[in-house]
Amino acid sequence: MSKQRSNVLIGQSGGPTAVINQTLVGLIETALDSGKVGRVLGTVHGIRGLLEGRLVDLGRESRAHLEKVANTPCAALRSVRKKPTADECAAVLDALVKNDVRYFFYIGGNDSAETAHLLNELAVAKGYELALFHCPKTIDNDLRQNDHCPGYGSAARFVAQAFQGDEMDNRSLAGVKIDVVMGRHAGWLTAASALARDHADAGPHLIYLPERDFDLDRFAADVERVYTKLGRCLVAVSEGIHGPGGKLLFEVKERDSHGNAQLSGSGALGDFLAAEVKQRLGAKLRVRADTFGYLQRSFPGAVSPVDASEAREVGRRAMAEALSGRRAHGSLALQRAPGPVYAPHYEVVELKSVAKETRHMGPEHLAGDEGVTEAFLDYVRPLVGPLEPMARLSDFPA
Amino acid sequence: MSKQRSNVLIGQSGGPTAVINQTLVGLIETALDSGKVGRVLGTVHGIRGLLEGRLVDLGRESRAHLEKVANTPCAALRSVRKKPTADECAAVLDALVKNDVRYFFYIGGNDSAETAHLLNELAVAKGYELALFHCPKTIDNDLRQNDHCPGYGSAARFVAQAFQGDEMDNRSLAGVKIDVVMGRHAGWLTAASALARDHADAGPHLIYLPERDFDLDRFAADVERVYTKLGRCLVAVSEGIHGPGGKLLFEVKERDSHGNAQLSGSGALGDFLAAEVKQRLGAKLRVRADTFGYLQRSFPGAVSPVDASEAREVGRRAMAEALSGRRAHGSLALQRAPGPVYAPHYEVVELKSVAKETRHMGPEHLAGDEGVTEAFLDYVRPLVGPLEPMARLSDFPA
Repeated sequence: MSKQRSNVLIGQSGGPTAVINQTLVGLIETALDSGKVGRVLGTVHGIRGLLEGRLVDLGRESRAHLEKVANTPCAALRSVRKKPTADECAAVLDALVKNDVRYFFYIGGNDSAETAHLLNELAVAKGYELALFHCPKTIDNDLRQNDHCPGYGSAARFVAQAFQGDEMDNRSLAGVKIDVVMGRHAGWLTAASALARDHADAGPHLIYLPERDFDLDRFAADVERVYTKLGRCLVAVSEGIHGPGGKLLFEVKERDSHGNAQLSGSGALGDFLAAEVKQRLGAKLRVRADTFGYLQRSFPGAVSPVDASEAREVGRRAMAEALSGRRAHGSLALQRAPGPVYAPHYEVVELKSVAKETRHMGPEHLAGDEGVTEAFLDYVRPLVGPLEPMARLSDFPA
Repeated sequence: MSKQRSNVLIGQSGGPTAVINQTLVGLIETALDSGKVGRVLGTVHGIRGLLEGRLVDLGRESRAHLEKVANTPCAALRSVRKKPTADECAAVLDALVKNDVRYFFYIGGNDSAETAHLLNELAVAKGYELALFHCPKTIDNDLRQNDHCPGYGSAARFVAQAFQGDEMDNRSLAGVKIDVVMGRHAGWLTAASALARDHADAGPHLIYLPERDFDLDRFAADVERVYTKLGRCLVAVSEGIHGPGGKLLFEVKERDSHGNAQLSGSGALGDFLAAEVKQRLGAKLRVRADTFGYLQRSFPGAVSPVDASEAREVGRRAMAEALSGRRAHGSLALQRAPGPVYAPHYEVVELKSVAKETRHMGPEHLAGDEGVTEAFLDYVRPLVGPLEPMARLSDFPA
């Protein structure tokens, strides 16, 4: 049976990013321009929309309107956090057959890649000819096979700008300031805070990542050392920090169907660490904690142009790959071309090679107990784009 | 004794804003261009620098560097939260005399205006000829005699953009989302969240301001009503909400020397409200809380151009007024020129008329129990500047 003129279906899944709709629009425009497919459909709230019959016709959107959607943060098709059961996978496949969908694209992180992999296995087993592609997105930057992930550059830009401003704030009104940054298992986003270090004594002075075991005593000693030296201390902490064996500092009440603990959407970790610092270093110390929260993935005013353009290109290439018929399934992977000047390079890899597992920061990126290397800064700078310099007065003596 | 060729001193005080250095540079450049004064000095950390002898020479900064400082958030001279005692006021005056300072400018909020007022009273009583001016700044927008305050427009822009993004986030992954916004006594900043309402069902769906008494039962009922109707609910809450008689929902441990409770730098209020919603509406409900924190006053990427330009002009006019000799003291007040097109208008008012007390939102700005009026939106729009529209898919049925 030929796929010619059959329908395209696109879904978005997992936590939003600021550029996730660039990928969506890249897929739509490439499908429409190809003249090879039937209708271009979207499923509302990911695979849930398929199960509930909530499909929309994306081919009827005007190109001008799609461009505005591409520049709007968070899943325009709305998202879902759902690992389908075997029964649900079967129901999803039935819905694809019923809607004559032969091209299915799932934009998401490693959990979404796992869902795509499960669906693909079932389609293959049932002999249903289906082009099934995963398009990467995650502010966590933790997808295997990728040098970096669409969505990360913009979130990292937000975090870098936030620390630029908060460094000036901490310098204005001295004290200990703890900022909690997203990143469930990997420290990529928290590490981007180091871009704010534009003076010898500029913060973040300490950076705690999930790649290392966190120790409260060492943390308190680190803060005291910096505070004693500078009279202030700005700290970047990943929400995913943990003790030996992955033990979280808190008991977490909520988990999703992929088994992920709820870490975001609460100020508890920051408040806990602030209270610890006060208790150990003195109640009179000015200690504050902020948890950057969902703004990191949704703020419309801090998009990295490189990130936006790569997210668009990922969608275009995924659709072109599917329509070419070269392979029936895969995940678009965003690599870095070799050479001294930054350029992206796109590949297609196996779905299962991206699914589930987390890509951590490596030893080349981690310096000492609480820092990052120059190699990491070189890695992240082109993804974030140029930052406005923060200017201090020269403090000429009067 | 003539003030001719005597020195200028500038200090910054209170919580930072994104444009507080525009005012600083407006003062410096106008003083230098006048040819009427001796040195242009700065006191590091406000009046604390005077007491500790930490003065810097601002006249030696290059104009190009000052321009970069003007575009950098948070007090370049560093700030302080300090209400001087009578002894300290006398010591400050001694330091002014010793440094031949006859022009003193204090950039800050109502607490800083109070400090300026106290110093001025003492200078008058001692017969020390001193031009003493207060320049307004506060993201809280709560200074009397002002239509709005330098710093507010940029913070309101950050809040509006944050809610634009979080509205799309809440629409992507439905649930109850509570965002806590700065504003100790007045709701101006929290109310700016309403600028994100660009669709009939767009949030924030509920807005809680300190101008009204907060009631937990009514809050929970409001959230349930919206959630039942829309399947989601985005809530804006001021950090300063309180029950009847001003009773805070929490016991607060820290207060500064002006008597202000520490509300910011903690996620406790948001977490408390989220827990209440879960307890009352069901533990399975997806409820999240973010506290925007210091980013609201320090984020470098969300400056309102109108705000930046007005903050600069406030500094220029304060210096020009002082040098004109028309009056010996006062506070620059930012008014709105009458007429259909927005334009600022600057006045000079008495120091004590700005000091201490808070300017609240009025009945013309408050709608029902949890909203704001169109009149408020008309008020705030020109201060924030144009926002990028958030585009949704049209959801054409498949």
